[in-house]
Amino acid sequence: MVEPTAELAAQRITSSGAIPLVDSVAVEEPLVITVNGQPYVTTMRTPGDDINLAKGLLYTDGIIQNSKQITDMHVTAGQVDVTLNIEYDMNVHARSFILSTSCGVCGRESIDAVLRKEPQIIPRTGFDINRYMVDKMLNSLRDLQVTFDITGGVHGIALFSKDGELVDLSEDVGRHNAMDKVIGRKLELIPLHHHGFLLSGRVSFEMVQKAVMAGTSVIVAIGAPTTLAVDLARQHGLTLIGFARERRFNVYSGSWRLH
Amino acid sequence: MVEPTAELAAQRITSSGAIPLVDSVAVEEPLVITVNGQPYVTTMRTPGDDINLAKGLLYTDGIIQNSKQITDMHVTAGQVDVTLNIEYDMNVHARSFILSTSCGVCGRESIDAVLRKEPQIIPRTGFDINRYMVDKMLNSLRDLQVTFDITGGVHGIALFSKDGELVDLSEDVGRHNAMDKVIGRKLELIPLHHHGFLLSGRVSFEMVQKAVMAGTSVIVAIGAPTTLAVDLARQHGLTLIGFARERRFNVYSGSWRLH
Repeated sequence: MVEPTAELAAQRITSSGAIPLVDSVAVEEPLVITVNGQPYVTTMRTPGDDINLAKGLLYTDGIIQNSKQITDMHVTAGQVDVTLNIEYDMNVHARSFILSTSCGVCGRESIDAVLRKEPQIIPRTGFDINRYMVDKMLNSLRDLQVTFDITGGVHGIALFSKDGELVDLSEDVGRHNAMDKVIGRKLELIPLHHHGFLLSGRVSFEMVQKAVMAGTSVIVAIGAPTTLAVDLARQHGLTLIGFARERRFNVYSGSWRLH
Repeated sequence: MVEPTAELAAQRITSSGAIPLVDSVAVEEPLVITVNGQPYVTTMRTPGDDINLAKGLLYTDGIIQNSKQITDMHVTAGQVDVTLNIEYDMNVHARSFILSTSCGVCGRESIDAVLRKEPQIIPRTGFDINRYMVDKMLNSLRDLQVTFDITGGVHGIALFSKDGELVDLSEDVGRHNAMDKVIGRKLELIPLHHHGFLLSGRVSFEMVQKAVMAGTSVIVAIGAPTTLAVDLARQHGLTLIGFARERRFNVYSGSWRLH
């Protein structure tokens, strides 16, 4: 069985000296994804739910538009072989390289190419958010982040509903993997207009790009956004909240959803 | 002039209501790197010192072994064109894709390929570290992290000397970029046996790989390591310290350098 954490021998050094320690460390291992027998990508991920990681990544990359295009998935340790009933040419589509722990846009030939994928149109209304919901979600995230509590070394990405309930959570050494796993699990429900993402860390371009592909209306992040993340969120009308703490946060985009 | 931060209009929401805010946000923008007129990679980085980012990345990727192999570097906004006096075939070497904000190993065809690059042999002795040095470095890092203080959104990577003095620092939305910038600036001094890296965040495989390529003896990180990071550090005899706080830290590899 694959475990998201491993125990390693270490030493803890304090002012009283050195003590031996068996420390739980987040597992980072390569996963090879092939499509129709041809290489697609190698991603550095925390093992677990590799099937949905592959599904989510192929969706957010724009290779597939729905799960019916997947006719077979074969999983072995460290590899997922995906069979599609649509055309796939590795010379056009393959990333053919390694995604590191926090690399979502790696392998696209240009940012334009990323943006050329058809994102969901996010409706302007139908999803409201307020500070009580944010407080509630932050509390729920802390309760649910099992691997983070053990290792301190993974990102947590949660999906929340209109009423601020966390309905799914994934943890991974790569935040892009964590988001792809959640998206893979919810593929049949896309567009996820009535949901938002809660991020334990920062918000880069790639995270907003994936959220837009999934059609979510909101991102709430504990960390800071980058300029390009804010730009993309504004362009697509996604509400972007950063520096979320108990009773305070910053809104960078889509403030009309705040009530 | 390129700035590492940009001011964006936002709102701060607190229990007393919403107030308008001009917030400084870390800039994330694509940089295209070409080699001998052919594409090499597009990396998502914080603008600034793009020349050394390109030099450092080409070195840690194993494309160049020293700075004498670079005969010209032409810098325009968003692009660095590098001319080498050695053979470069984009079909063999190019990454030809986008590196996201925290993606160091992206684009390599396999981890084996990364490891096939000839890393520096790190001498077992000649560099000692103790908890007073770690305390001193953590204090210095906080004093120096200018962009982090403003944005809360970038990684800081510092190079420190045998006596725990921080001798260089780079900040970037991508930790791999920050480390490549420092390595690019110190290329003539490699192998950096008498230096170590101090990381403001976590330690993934890619960060250890770059440190090993640069020949540094030690990594001290405020964040957690991954399993693969510990494996690689142990394999190369690099001392890996994680969870560094005032007066305490964990040692995962190379504890013989602790005194």
